[in-house]
Amino acid sequence: MVSADILERLSATLVSRRDADPNVSYVAKLFHKGQEAILKKVGEESVEVIMAAKDGDKLHIVREVADLWFHTLVLLAHEGLSHEDVLAELARREGISGIDEKAARKGH
Amino acid sequence: MVSADILERLSATLVSRRDADPNVSYVAKLFHKGQEAILKKVGEESVEVIMAAKDGDKLHIVREVADLWFHTLVLLAHEGLSHEDVLAELARREGISGIDEKAARKGH
Amino acid sequence: MVSADILERLSATLVSRRDADPNVSYVAKLFHKGQEAILKKVGEESVEVIMAAKDGDKLHIVREVADLWFHTLVLLAHEGLSHEDVLAELARREGISGIDEKAARKGH
Amino acid sequence: MVSADILERLSATLVSRRDADPNVSYVAKLFHKGQEAILKKVGEESVEVIMAAKDGDKLHIVREVADLWFHTLVLLAHEGLSHEDVLAELARREGISGIDEKAARKGH
Repeated sequence: MVSADILERLSATLVSRRDADPNVSYVAKLFHKGQEAILKKVGEESVEVIMAAKDGDKLHIVREVADLWFHTLVLLAHEGLSHEDVLAELARREGISGIDEKAARKGH
Repeated sequence: MVSADILERLSATLVSRRDADPNVSYVAKLFHKGQEAILKKVGEESVEVIMAAKDGDKLHIVREVADLWFHTLVLLAHEGLSHEDVLAELARREGISGIDEKAARKGH
Repeated sequence: MVSADILERLSATLVSRRDADPNVSYVAKLFHKGQEAILKKVGEESVEVIMAAKDGDKLHIVREVADLWFHTLVLLAHEGLSHEDVLAELARREGISGIDEKAARKGH
Repeated sequence: MVSADILERLSATLVSRRDADPNVSYVAKLFHKGQEAILKKVGEESVEVIMAAKDGDKLHIVREVADLWFHTLVLLAHEGLSHEDVLAELARREGISGIDEKAARKGH
């Protein structure tokens, strides 16, 4: 089993890049460009997930979902949030009313 | 610290719903509708993440990212994949060349 | 040749529905729900265009692009804008530097 | 009133670029890259429309809708379709049951 600690390590690295020199890395540059640039990447990566799934290419789906999760982690770090907030929200829903709480909340 | 075990539990629940009666739950219904319906949800939730971020509403951002991750987990389960494949891919990138491997791969 | 007057007629109808009873029609209801609901539709329809193109179904592509254009017309009307502003912008680009002005502007 | 002839002229230009040297122009390059690249642009531009609307910047909304329509025209040309097919579809809906036909069709 792959440890989910990777989310912990990634988040720590992201925080350390938040105020780094934009020339240091892709992520530092993205933080420097700001929210608009990060949101464009979230949009792009979700389109790439959709296209990979349509192609039925499993390896590609995994890579694109990884890209999408990664860029949502960048967004969370940009907003002073982290993967823990998201995992806590997912756990909260499970705790209250199970996996379908979200559906109930949205009135599906 | 919130345990990332929630991803493990969610994935197990999703697999159990994959062939369940569509009337049982929101997720069973979504699996029954198939890939196209799941991908529409991935697209919708990414737009909602973007709008929540634009609104600067942190609680809303967390909820929408949770919705987005949740629906990517549904997609992964639909394709016979899981969160472990995604975490392994994120770990692989970290192992090879750090957090910016993705940028390198894409030629940014 | 199909006349582009349809855009003119559609825009006029949309303006007339802007303050109509939400129960009167789909569009009146969408205007009543407001910008957030309209933007969700723009996002959804663009995902459907992408999926139809991936499926290679030409009839479906036409329908989904029609849906997408229609919902951008709803957005324009909601913002006090119209198809004329968009056509003028497209003509302006053609006037200045041809079809590739947009690329130039974006620094591609 | 701005003439909708711009759609006619744009479409003609797009067809002429379809098999042009990719180095000639932004559009020729996009056609050369193929459907996947065109669809990514459609996705990106729809996200930019959504963000511009959220910002409440009318000039920006017009520019981004123009970008979105432009890239859907590129997609149509790539698939052997044109703006006329889309306008005919919009006119057909108007002819049959008015502006809300689409809603009826989708079962809203």
